[in-house]
Amino acid sequence: MEKFAFLENQNLANQIKFAIEIDKMKQIMRVNLLADGSRRENDAEHSWHFAVMAMLLEEYSAEKVDVSRCIKIALVHDLVEVYAGDTYAYDAKGNEDKLERELAAADKLFGLLEPEQGAYFRALWDEFEAKETPEARYANAIDRIQPLMLNYLTDGKTWQANQVHSGQIYKRMDIIRTATPELWCIVEGIIKTSVEKGILLP
Amino acid sequence: MEKFAFLENQNLANQIKFAIEIDKMKQIMRVNLLADGSRRENDAEHSWHFAVMAMLLEEYSAEKVDVSRCIKIALVHDLVEVYAGDTYAYDAKGNEDKLERELAAADKLFGLLEPEQGAYFRALWDEFEAKETPEARYANAIDRIQPLMLNYLTDGKTWQANQVHSGQIYKRMDIIRTATPELWCIVEGIIKTSVEKGILLP
Repeated sequence: MEKFAFLENQNLANQIKFAIEIDKMKQIMRVNLLADGSRRENDAEHSWHFAVMAMLLEEYSAEKVDVSRCIKIALVHDLVEVYAGDTYAYDAKGNEDKLERELAAADKLFGLLEPEQGAYFRALWDEFEAKETPEARYANAIDRIQPLMLNYLTDGKTWQANQVHSGQIYKRMDIIRTATPELWCIVEGIIKTSVEKGILLP
Repeated sequence: MEKFAFLENQNLANQIKFAIEIDKMKQIMRVNLLADGSRRENDAEHSWHFAVMAMLLEEYSAEKVDVSRCIKIALVHDLVEVYAGDTYAYDAKGNEDKLERELAAADKLFGLLEPEQGAYFRALWDEFEAKETPEARYANAIDRIQPLMLNYLTDGKTWQANQVHSGQIYKRMDIIRTATPELWCIVEGIIKTSVEKGILLP
């Protein structure tokens, strides 16, 4: 932050520091590929795509949601990965200590901001993780559909590389069944077609 | 969309087609670099960063804004570049036919959706471009601060490569002076420091 030493407002200096720190999201690589298979997707791209899809598919939420809050959740739901890294959904070992790593990351990252604003950002992340509000349930459904769509478009390459089978995907996608039942046809269609094509283990 | 032939709901099929089409935003490269200078930034990353910064800096808007609308504007403001490509802010020639290219792109892209939803997305883009609402003015200010910050952090490499001088930046940033006057210190601090350091032409 030496470069921003000219800032006299400490609150603004903290916010700029936060804005610079989260630039790292553009280099946190996920397991799934882009739609054209050219490379892996990063967290910033995923968060943007998830947020736009939350805008796009609101009508399919089973519960009435404040979609603006779902969008904010999408934008910040992976921020802790700036320090904790991405954990692949089907990596059992990585998921064992995921919560612990992410809680420490949340303290560090949101702690850069003044307490009130830090708490506001953190509450969005906590809400997403807890899945106890309609907004969090809808957001979790969209967060799962987005990479499912990309994995399917890229012929299940990352499923094969990680020996993922259809049962694991059905389990991971389960929240879609209740949060966005009219989108369950996407999950079923993708899994059935993929198993038939031999790009996903039954 | 052959791969999604199993979708019976035509509206949903259109929405999925749109969601796949905009994946291309992840490959539309901007001129500015990431904060660490490792590579250029793409439109999806920029849109996400802009949206989070709109959340973060709301208190500095001179006019009261519905920040949720600003965030939606941020998410969709560059979507037309999927077909029209990115036009560098300081490329006089490229900006001559920018509007024409982007209008055609908007018709094509938002036309993928059912009319009502297409119009909703398009209205957000139109609003951003027109700069006639408090939300559009605030969004335009943040859209300018985000790359300014990254260009400064990367020692003005892209300014030098394009022989940009301070007068051009002052002009481009002018909306910050009125839309977010308390953020003008960032513009002044960055330009003054950069000229002093010799990384920006006076």
